[in-house]
Amino acid sequence: MRAAVLTDPGEFELRERARPDPAPDEVLVRIRRVGVCGSDVHYYEHGRIGDYVVEDPLVLGHESAGEVVAVGEAVDSLEPGARVTLEPGVPCRRCPHCKRGSYHLCPDVTFMATPPHDGAFVEYVAWPADFVYELPDSVSLGEGALCEPLSVGIHACRRGGVAPGDSVLVTGAGPIGLLAADAARVAGATTVLVTDVVPEKVARAERRGADQAVDVTEVDLGAVVDEHTDGVGVDVVVEASGATASIQSALDGVRRGGTVVFVGLAPEAEVPIDVLDIVDGELDVHGSFRYANTYPAAVDLLAQGAVDVAGLVDAEHSLDDVDGAFQRATAPDVVKVMVTLDR
Amino acid sequence: MRAAVLTDPGEFELRERARPDPAPDEVLVRIRRVGVCGSDVHYYEHGRIGDYVVEDPLVLGHESAGEVVAVGEAVDSLEPGARVTLEPGVPCRRCPHCKRGSYHLCPDVTFMATPPHDGAFVEYVAWPADFVYELPDSVSLGEGALCEPLSVGIHACRRGGVAPGDSVLVTGAGPIGLLAADAARVAGATTVLVTDVVPEKVARAERRGADQAVDVTEVDLGAVVDEHTDGVGVDVVVEASGATASIQSALDGVRRGGTVVFVGLAPEAEVPIDVLDIVDGELDVHGSFRYANTYPAAVDLLAQGAVDVAGLVDAEHSLDDVDGAFQRATAPDVVKVMVTLDR
Amino acid sequence: MRAAVLTDPGEFELRERARPDPAPDEVLVRIRRVGVCGSDVHYYEHGRIGDYVVEDPLVLGHESAGEVVAVGEAVDSLEPGARVTLEPGVPCRRCPHCKRGSYHLCPDVTFMATPPHDGAFVEYVAWPADFVYELPDSVSLGEGALCEPLSVGIHACRRGGVAPGDSVLVTGAGPIGLLAADAARVAGATTVLVTDVVPEKVARAERRGADQAVDVTEVDLGAVVDEHTDGVGVDVVVEASGATASIQSALDGVRRGGTVVFVGLAPEAEVPIDVLDIVDGELDVHGSFRYANTYPAAVDLLAQGAVDVAGLVDAEHSLDDVDGAFQRATAPDVVKVMVTLDR
Amino acid sequence: MRAAVLTDPGEFELRERARPDPAPDEVLVRIRRVGVCGSDVHYYEHGRIGDYVVEDPLVLGHESAGEVVAVGEAVDSLEPGARVTLEPGVPCRRCPHCKRGSYHLCPDVTFMATPPHDGAFVEYVAWPADFVYELPDSVSLGEGALCEPLSVGIHACRRGGVAPGDSVLVTGAGPIGLLAADAARVAGATTVLVTDVVPEKVARAERRGADQAVDVTEVDLGAVVDEHTDGVGVDVVVEASGATASIQSALDGVRRGGTVVFVGLAPEAEVPIDVLDIVDGELDVHGSFRYANTYPAAVDLLAQGAVDVAGLVDAEHSLDDVDGAFQRATAPDVVKVMVTLDR
Repeated sequence: MRAAVLTDPGEFELRERARPDPAPDEVLVRIRRVGVCGSDVHYYEHGRIGDYVVEDPLVLGHESAGEVVAVGEAVDSLEPGARVTLEPGVPCRRCPHCKRGSYHLCPDVTFMATPPHDGAFVEYVAWPADFVYELPDSVSLGEGALCEPLSVGIHACRRGGVAPGDSVLVTGAGPIGLLAADAARVAGATTVLVTDVVPEKVARAERRGADQAVDVTEVDLGAVVDEHTDGVGVDVVVEASGATASIQSALDGVRRGGTVVFVGLAPEAEVPIDVLDIVDGELDVHGSFRYANTYPAAVDLLAQGAVDVAGLVDAEHSLDDVDGAFQRATAPDVVKVMVTLDR
Repeated sequence: MRAAVLTDPGEFELRERARPDPAPDEVLVRIRRVGVCGSDVHYYEHGRIGDYVVEDPLVLGHESAGEVVAVGEAVDSLEPGARVTLEPGVPCRRCPHCKRGSYHLCPDVTFMATPPHDGAFVEYVAWPADFVYELPDSVSLGEGALCEPLSVGIHACRRGGVAPGDSVLVTGAGPIGLLAADAARVAGATTVLVTDVVPEKVARAERRGADQAVDVTEVDLGAVVDEHTDGVGVDVVVEASGATASIQSALDGVRRGGTVVFVGLAPEAEVPIDVLDIVDGELDVHGSFRYANTYPAAVDLLAQGAVDVAGLVDAEHSLDDVDGAFQRATAPDVVKVMVTLDR
Repeated sequence: MRAAVLTDPGEFELRERARPDPAPDEVLVRIRRVGVCGSDVHYYEHGRIGDYVVEDPLVLGHESAGEVVAVGEAVDSLEPGARVTLEPGVPCRRCPHCKRGSYHLCPDVTFMATPPHDGAFVEYVAWPADFVYELPDSVSLGEGALCEPLSVGIHACRRGGVAPGDSVLVTGAGPIGLLAADAARVAGATTVLVTDVVPEKVARAERRGADQAVDVTEVDLGAVVDEHTDGVGVDVVVEASGATASIQSALDGVRRGGTVVFVGLAPEAEVPIDVLDIVDGELDVHGSFRYANTYPAAVDLLAQGAVDVAGLVDAEHSLDDVDGAFQRATAPDVVKVMVTLDR
Repeated sequence: MRAAVLTDPGEFELRERARPDPAPDEVLVRIRRVGVCGSDVHYYEHGRIGDYVVEDPLVLGHESAGEVVAVGEAVDSLEPGARVTLEPGVPCRRCPHCKRGSYHLCPDVTFMATPPHDGAFVEYVAWPADFVYELPDSVSLGEGALCEPLSVGIHACRRGGVAPGDSVLVTGAGPIGLLAADAARVAGATTVLVTDVVPEKVARAERRGADQAVDVTEVDLGAVVDEHTDGVGVDVVVEASGATASIQSALDGVRRGGTVVFVGLAPEAEVPIDVLDIVDGELDVHGSFRYANTYPAAVDLLAQGAVDVAGLVDAEHSLDDVDGAFQRATAPDVVKVMVTLDR
């Protein structure tokens, strides 16, 4: 089978690899759609993310969907032909995090496209059946692949406790920010504000239903928050940009007793934070890391038409043109590029 | 001013009463819309609800909206002319329940239309400003009045912890059941099932967006639940009928580890319950009594168009015809009758 | 190796069985202490508990501790010689309950001494290493075995949200009730009331530190609750008897907005319950089934001396005298009998 | 009556003031014990805390207890002669924070000894009866006064969700840190580590029952945490020092998925924080500001002997010697000075 292998920063090679055999509890999936994530682009450009270094040729991609072509002997939840999405992190199932239901914090997780584990830019993947979810007819494979970033958004809103009637500020209108905004709306938020510094992304956030999308290079965010919240501040901020300025404005924009969720990956090592704001405001500040127990909800929300993930996709490229896909994905106004593996 | 006074069971009298003066922290509201609640009908028919007995002539009505015509000297949150809805229960503000945020459990609450406290079928009400909420232009006075039953539905879903992706069964398609179903959808439920025994109510539940509405006199509820949940049971049941059979089917329809909310008022003293079901299933069973801290969310949800309360109203009657309103409200297929006080 | 096998109701046979070999992720434990649980006695007397029927000869016992004598090749958390306690339920690790952290609700759990799974009245058990917990020197093997019922008590108090300053009523002074009372104290309860109908158990509850232990055949429980709570009712009730009268008094004894935990196994099919009490009182009623994620806390609490489980044990019998152990365990004033397997 | 009035930084004057009359819902308390808090000392030394500036002569003191000498006509919860402690913050009872049960976040709170509100270094205080709590005989007036800092500790542990079996690190061994450590133990923490930079405070923390108290000027905290938690990190950190280094070590010392509570007041405006630690570790970071709904628990815990607040007091000074009290309170090894008003 073919696999797009990152051999060096900036360099993909289409290689032949042996098609895997599913273990007894696994299914074999013919991959059909894989989204390009910001972390994929980061590995592509820099060969590393923090301590995770690409030392050996690596297959990227962890936002995937496809068709089951074979099932292990112990699998009775899926059958060949099922259209499915793959949850890319499989934990150890044995550590305290796994037992507590926080399997996403498992230190021994096998996560696609995180060195040394290969990802999904490949024709076939064998994967544990309980991390493979069937898609109903009403959910396309492209939507199925985007259950992954949608899961990040759902998890961030769970971490923030977003509830009906809440006002929510989302900083950053990349895929995570946009899907967090959608997840907030789905959870009942009645005011959703979104920020970015790229006009196209701001416009897209507004088109997708934000009550107001703010280009923070042009408009004073504090005034916008005040206007929408009678000067009180929002109930929940989801910081999805990782930018230092946004991290600080998150703490400024939230109401007393409110909640801030950090889901964006801050590039700098340390951000100056006014801890007194956290104490006096009695804030709840939550890190949000990947997700757990989100895929069934994500699939159901897509089936119900509650979230528009298809509208995130700016371009589709075939696996043969994975280079083109990554080139496209680096454009500042692009939100999501999808790689297709159709015969 | 005129007031519709219940003098005896089944008998209203329009009487002149002195228009109240607002205390320093109160506003005076010209009442314009008042919904007829099942509890109003119960007092009208029986002269009592449990230990609450109508001993003196009583003004019924607690689902109200109108216009502010005067404000007390300490009030700066509202001005004359504001269109408002009134939260009908004002607690003592001093007891442990009030201090914990459960002010609806305050034993010294003043609740409209609960003896000996008069309600809102009257031209003017003076009410503490902090329990009076301004309606934006996009919310009609009739919708404003229905913030009350909507609050009951919101509170029930909060008690049930309804969250995005949940499957929810609501038993009973009266106003509380229908609005609980809406509140569940607003909170992200992806499957909403509703039951009733009156075909018109079942049909209405389906028209309002239930995934399936079930006439339990005709259809086996267990089979419907199984079909929608792969045999697992729903995540949350909101029991809004008070019927013994529904209380029991609530415990049968919920999944292991799921949640049952009792919000309907059971008429019988005791219901036989299989406690082992609660233990083995490790269920969470929550009573839901009125509401607290729901009005701002209710108003925002109506402003956003997320809930259709106007569609509940079957008929409007003027205050002069309060008898006609109550007659209409007793019909089994009627969900909500609205009393109007327009000049 | 020897195993005490229940061949028919009331009949144990000491049989030779093959010593198991540990799988790669298992450890082999030389069992040294096994507590006799009420469920063991129930199988012994009746050959069944509800739908669980002893059809083939069964080894009872699930409250066990011993010494590791061998470890599978993939085990690095334990070494031979370690003194350990065994958590008796091993779940599938794959179902939604397991992934959510509620592994005790897993429908495919392997639970010791629940047909068809053998238990711990046997010389050696091979068990997954992650469900085997090392005991520090300060915790005896007998205490280690009682981590199991202590876990039931800890879980019940978690389910009840017992917190510092709470008043707690525990109905039933068997091992679960007594350990739930201890767990409530450990969680900060400042008032702990315990009931029973057996004078010796009442006296024991008082000796173990209950603020008041009540023989409900002699004393009016309502008056005691009122006295300790200024007539308000307790914050949390843990119903640990399964008796119909206690289930009903649990709902009477709790304050408005309070919590009732059902952990006792009700023998009768249905108990008449006043559902209006649950609605009007806005109660939280929680089933509590076994436990999850409690063993580390149980071991730590024993190590710290915070709970006295050793004081529960009325008698010790060797495996040769398992009949005598079970005879003794059926006496109404006996709380816990321990079976020893010392050479 | 006499009052110790701060007229200028560093300068107290004993002045005669009119004895207040209790309003209908107030009680008049003869003050007998007042603890000196760090914030009192800060006003004494600097004349301000942040935006709160002492512009007019101010009575300090908010940790107080005494005897009821008169009650307003609407008060039936207390009678003259009752020994009581006063909760120093009385909120507006009307704003959303008050209604949600977070009355400590009320922007219109009247808080003793916070400009412009006078405090308790005075012979008589009239105070709303529902913020005055009777002390049982077993709790001394000195202990009663220290319900205030104990409340801060209890609230911090509630914010941190400290539960039985948890490991807790408290940074800072001043009164808040020591009482937070006690509150953690009361909530069931089985490992409690405490840090400070003053050897006497470290020693005191260890005497009071910390599993280990660490002088961070001498010992590597990370190694201590690792030793007590098998290298995993503690479940909860309560940062009670406000020192930048401690804030940073709080984030280092907590386990993945763990909780950090900031209760200490950071002197510097901004602290460099590695936000990636919060995201990757999926930490919960909670500000903790004063307290709400803690006094009943605090009184009960003292009555039960669960917390030793008396042992915090290093010195007692009479009101005549309030200067001496404040001088003593500035010594680095002093934890608590008590002012007495006995004649």
